[in-house]
Amino acid sequence: MAQYTPPLRDMQFVLHEVLGAGAVLKGLPAHAEITPELIDQVIEEGGKFCAEVLFPLNQVGDREGCVLDKATHEVKTPTGFKEAFRKFAEGGWPALSCDPAYGGQGLPHVVQTAFQEMMNSANQAWSMYPGLTHGAYQALMRHGTEEQKRTYLPKFISGEWTGTMCLTEPHCGTDLGLLRSRAEPQGDGTYRITGGKIFISSGEHDMAANIVHLVLARLPDAPAGTKGISLFIVPKFLVNPDGSLGARNAITCGALEHKMGIHGNATCQMNLDGAIGTMVGEPNKGLNAMFVMMNGARLGVGMQSLGLMAVAYQSSAAYARERLQMRSLSGPKAPDKAADPIIVHPDVRRMLLTQRAYLEASRAFALWISLQADIAHYSDDEDERADAEDLLALLTPIVKAFITDAGFECTNLALQVFGGHGYIAEWGMEQFVRDARINQIYEGTNTVQSLDFLGRKVLGDGGKKFKKFGALVEALAEEHGANPAMKEFIDPLAELGEKLAELSMWIGMQGFKNADEVGAAATDYLRLAGHLVYSYFWARMAAVALPKADTDPFYKAKLATARFYFARLLPETEMLAKRLKAGSKVLLALEAENF
Amino acid sequence: MAQYTPPLRDMQFVLHEVLGAGAVLKGLPAHAEITPELIDQVIEEGGKFCAEVLFPLNQVGDREGCVLDKATHEVKTPTGFKEAFRKFAEGGWPALSCDPAYGGQGLPHVVQTAFQEMMNSANQAWSMYPGLTHGAYQALMRHGTEEQKRTYLPKFISGEWTGTMCLTEPHCGTDLGLLRSRAEPQGDGTYRITGGKIFISSGEHDMAANIVHLVLARLPDAPAGTKGISLFIVPKFLVNPDGSLGARNAITCGALEHKMGIHGNATCQMNLDGAIGTMVGEPNKGLNAMFVMMNGARLGVGMQSLGLMAVAYQSSAAYARERLQMRSLSGPKAPDKAADPIIVHPDVRRMLLTQRAYLEASRAFALWISLQADIAHYSDDEDERADAEDLLALLTPIVKAFITDAGFECTNLALQVFGGHGYIAEWGMEQFVRDARINQIYEGTNTVQSLDFLGRKVLGDGGKKFKKFGALVEALAEEHGANPAMKEFIDPLAELGEKLAELSMWIGMQGFKNADEVGAAATDYLRLAGHLVYSYFWARMAAVALPKADTDPFYKAKLATARFYFARLLPETEMLAKRLKAGSKVLLALEAENF
Repeated sequence: MAQYTPPLRDMQFVLHEVLGAGAVLKGLPAHAEITPELIDQVIEEGGKFCAEVLFPLNQVGDREGCVLDKATHEVKTPTGFKEAFRKFAEGGWPALSCDPAYGGQGLPHVVQTAFQEMMNSANQAWSMYPGLTHGAYQALMRHGTEEQKRTYLPKFISGEWTGTMCLTEPHCGTDLGLLRSRAEPQGDGTYRITGGKIFISSGEHDMAANIVHLVLARLPDAPAGTKGISLFIVPKFLVNPDGSLGARNAITCGALEHKMGIHGNATCQMNLDGAIGTMVGEPNKGLNAMFVMMNGARLGVGMQSLGLMAVAYQSSAAYARERLQMRSLSGPKAPDKAADPIIVHPDVRRMLLTQRAYLEASRAFALWISLQADIAHYSDDEDERADAEDLLALLTPIVKAFITDAGFECTNLALQVFGGHGYIAEWGMEQFVRDARINQIYEGTNTVQSLDFLGRKVLGDGGKKFKKFGALVEALAEEHGANPAMKEFIDPLAELGEKLAELSMWIGMQGFKNADEVGAAATDYLRLAGHLVYSYFWARMAAVALPKADTDPFYKAKLATARFYFARLLPETEMLAKRLKAGSKVLLALEAENF
Repeated sequence: MAQYTPPLRDMQFVLHEVLGAGAVLKGLPAHAEITPELIDQVIEEGGKFCAEVLFPLNQVGDREGCVLDKATHEVKTPTGFKEAFRKFAEGGWPALSCDPAYGGQGLPHVVQTAFQEMMNSANQAWSMYPGLTHGAYQALMRHGTEEQKRTYLPKFISGEWTGTMCLTEPHCGTDLGLLRSRAEPQGDGTYRITGGKIFISSGEHDMAANIVHLVLARLPDAPAGTKGISLFIVPKFLVNPDGSLGARNAITCGALEHKMGIHGNATCQMNLDGAIGTMVGEPNKGLNAMFVMMNGARLGVGMQSLGLMAVAYQSSAAYARERLQMRSLSGPKAPDKAADPIIVHPDVRRMLLTQRAYLEASRAFALWISLQADIAHYSDDEDERADAEDLLALLTPIVKAFITDAGFECTNLALQVFGGHGYIAEWGMEQFVRDARINQIYEGTNTVQSLDFLGRKVLGDGGKKFKKFGALVEALAEEHGANPAMKEFIDPLAELGEKLAELSMWIGMQGFKNADEVGAAATDYLRLAGHLVYSYFWARMAAVALPKADTDPFYKAKLATARFYFARLLPETEMLAKRLKAGSKVLLALEAENF
C-alpha cells in the first residue's frame, strides 16, 4: 500500500547541513529572527497536518472525484476535502509565507517550499486549491492596487476565499496571443467580461465562501496578439465595500473535465457572461501580472512532482523490503523465509535508487531555489538580490520540466516495484503516476519550458544568467578540488560544465543561421542543464556526507546515492549531447503531410 | 480525438518488400499455396473488422468497465463487447492460424500477427478475451491429450468458448514455486482443485457459453517449488461426453480488480472450491505446458504495445497537423492562418518521429519473428526449424520488454502532443497510456524478461543462440557494405554488434565471479540488444527505401525515419553501455534497511 512519513530528517539535512539555511536567513533583515529550530518546528507541524489530514483523503479524492450540479453550477468536492480545508485554515497554514501586513506569518519561502512538498506527497489534487490561491496572492501582492490587496489578500491568507488563474480557451493554450475573451469597460472602473475558459483548476468548489478568478481578456480597443491582453479580478460573489459578499457574479462552471488523474481537483469549463471584474495592473499588460502567478505556478508544479516522488519512493522501498519473491541470484539472503525480499535483486535496487537519486537532488534543488527567492525578496544587498533573481528566473524552467519528467519516471518505477499490484487502484501506486502525468503538461508544457530556458533564459542574454550558475559550479570545484575523496564527484561535474559551455556556444552559432536549431536542441539542452544542476547538488550532498559515511548509515546512504547518480544517471548526458548535435535536419526532413 | 486507420500499406511494405514473406511461406509445405495477394486480402478484411467493430468500443469499454454480480458471480462486460465477440466468431477470426484438423483455417502466424496488431490498436481490453483463448489453444494443442484436444479446440476455434491462464496467487507472482493451490486426485482421472487465484484476465464474462481455465496447482505428494506444479483444465461448466455443457463447476469470480487501465477486460479473483479438472501433460511438469501459453502470451503482449503505438501515433500526427498554436521559430509556415499547425515545431517532430521510429521497427520485428514461428512450425528442414526456434526463443523477451517499454514511451509522447487535451479522457489519448502500462508488467515483468534474456537465452548457452542473430547482422553488413549510401546505417549497426559481443563477454566473466552482476546488467543489456534488433530492421527498411526515396514520398518517409532512428535514438546505447559497466557495486552498496 502507499504509505507516507514526512521526511523531516532528509529535509533537515538539506536545509541545515547542505544549504546552511539558518545562516542565509540570518543575513536577510526580515528573517534575521528565524532560527533552524523554528524552521524544524514549523516543518514538523506541517508534516503532521499533511500525513494525518491530507494523506488519508488522497485515494478518496481519486475515487470520488468532483461532481457538478448542472442546475446550480455548484461543485461538490470529495468527502473530507472541505473539512480538511477548514482545518488547514484554522491551523494558519495559508498564511505561512504571506506578508504580515495582510495577516500573514512572514515566514521564509524555503519553509513554504518544504511544506508544499509534503502537501503534494499527501494529496496533490487537494493541494491545488490552496496552491492556486497562493499564486493569486502573489500576483495581487505584486500588481494589485492597495484597495485590491486590502480586499482580497486577507481573505486568501485566512483561508476564507480561494483563487484561480483563467488563461486557457479551447483554441488557445500555449499561444495566449489567440485569446478571445472580451472585457467591456463600464465607466465606473469595472468591466464586464465575456468568454469561455477551459482547464480552470479549482474553478468551482464547496470549500470556500468565495472564489476569486484572475481572468485574462481583451479590451475592445486592444491590439492583436499578446500585447493586447489585460488581467482582471472576477470574483464568484461580488464584494461589497465593507468586505461582505454581494451578488453572484456571472462566472459559472459549465462542465467538469474527466481526467487521467488529479480527480479530487475540479477542472472546470468556466463561462463568463458579462461577469463584473476590476483590472489588475495596466491595460494590455495583463501578461506581466499573470506571469508572476505563472512563475510561481511553475515552481509549484515542480513541487508537486517532488512530493509525488517522495511518497512513491517511500511506498516502493517499504514494499521491496516486505515482499518475498524469488531468491537472490548470489544465494539466499533470507534462508528462514519462503523467499527473499525483492530488495535483494539488483534491478529492484536500480528502480529504488533511481527514484532516490532524483528525489533527493530535486529536494535539495527546490529548497535551494526557494532560498534564492528569499534572498531575491528580502536581501538588502542589491547585487545579491539581482543574482538571486537571475538564478531563480534561469532555473524555474528546470524546476518545472526536469523535476516533472523525473517525477513521472520515478512514480512509474515505484509502480513497477509493486509488480501487478502496482496496476491495481487499491494499492495507491497507479494514482501517483496518473497525478504526476499532468505536471509535464500544465503551466506550460515541458517543451515550452525548454524553449523558455534555452531561447530566453540562456541565449536571450548571451549566457549571462547561466554563467552565474556556472560560477557556483566552479566555486564548488575549487572548494573541493584538492580533496581526492571528492574527485569522483567534482571531475564529472566540472566536465559537464565545460561540455555545456561548449554546446551552448555551438547552439548559439547554429541558432543565428536557423532559429529551428534552437527548437531542435531545446529539450535535450534542458535535460543536460538539469543534470548539471543535479550533479552540482549531489556533489554538495556528497561533500557533507563523506566525513560521516563510515560511522552513520544516514550519511552512508547519501554517499551511496550520490555514487549511484554519477555512475548510472549522469551518463544520460552523453546520449543527450550526441542527440543534440544531430541538429534540426533529421527532424525537419519530412513534409507535414507525410507523417 | 483518437483515430485509427489500419496501416495496410505499411504492413505490405514490411511483409512483401522487406521480409519477402511470400517467398518464405512458399518454402514451407503447409503454406506453399499462400500468395501475397491472399495475405493482403485477409489483413484488409481483418483491418475492417478492427476499425469498424472494435475501435468504436474502446472508449466505451474504458468508461463502463466490467461489473460483477456478487450473487450470481456473473460478470457483465461493457456495452457492445458481447456482440462484437459474436461478429468476431461469425467472421471466422478465431480460426485464422489454427489447425484445420480442429476447424482452423491454417493461415500462417505472420497473418495472425498482423491481425493482432490491428485488434490491439482498436481495443486492447477486448482483444485480451480472444488473445488468452488463443494461448489456451496453443497450450492444449501442444500438451493436451487427443480427447482434450477434440473436446476443447473446436470450441476455441469456433469462438463458442474462451480460455484463461490461472497462475498468480496473492503471495506468488513471478515466483511460481510458492504456489499453494491444491489438486486432489479423485481416482477417476479427474481432480478436485482448491485455491485462490488473482489477476485472472478474462476470468469471468458474458461473451461465451463456457470459459476454460488452465490452472496451475499442486498434487498432494508434489515436491516443493517449481518442480511440483501440475496443469489442469478447469472449465466453468463441466463438459459432457457428447460435448454439451454439464453442471456449473466450483470455480467462481469472487471480485474484480479496479485497475489503472484495460477496464474493458475483467481481471478476476477466482475461487476454486473443489473444482473438477483434468490434468494437462504430466504430473509435476505443468510449468512446461504453461510455458507454451506463457511464451505465446509474451509475444502477444508485445503486439499489444505495438498496436497501441500505431493508434497513438496516427492520432497524434493528425492532431499535430490540425492544431494551430504559435508560429514556427524560423518564420510563419501558414501565414493565412491565425497560427501555424504545431507540426512545424521541431520538438513536436521529435515526439512524432520517436513514435514512428519505434512503431515501424517494432512492426518489422514482430512480423519477422512471426515468420520465424512459421518456419519453426512448418519447415521441412530440420536445421532451418532449429535456427528459427532459437531465434524465436532468444528474441521473445525483447519483443515483450523492448516493445512494451517503447509502447509506454510512445503513447506518452502521443498524449504530450495533445497538450492539456491529452490529459482529458474524452480525447482518448490518456487511455492508451493507461492501457500500455500493464504491458510492462504482466506475463513476467520487464525485469524478469531481461533476466530471462541475459541469464538464460544469452549466457545460458554461451551465446550460441545470440550468435545466430549476430550472423544475420553480419550478413546484412556484407550485403550492403559496398554501397556507400548504406554506410550511415550499416556502420553503426556493425559497431553496436561488436560492442555487444564485447559486453557479453565482459558480463559473462563478471557473472562467473558474482551472479548479481548478471542481475545488475540485465535491464541495460536487454535494451542494448533491443537497439541492435531495431537498427538491424531500420537498416533493412532503409535498404528497400533508398532507391525509391527520391521519387515516392512513402519511401522518403521510411528513409527519413531510419535516419532519425540512427541519429537520435540509437545514441542511447552509449549511455546504456556506460551504465552497465558501472556494475552491481553501486546498486548493492546500501543495506536494505537504509532505503
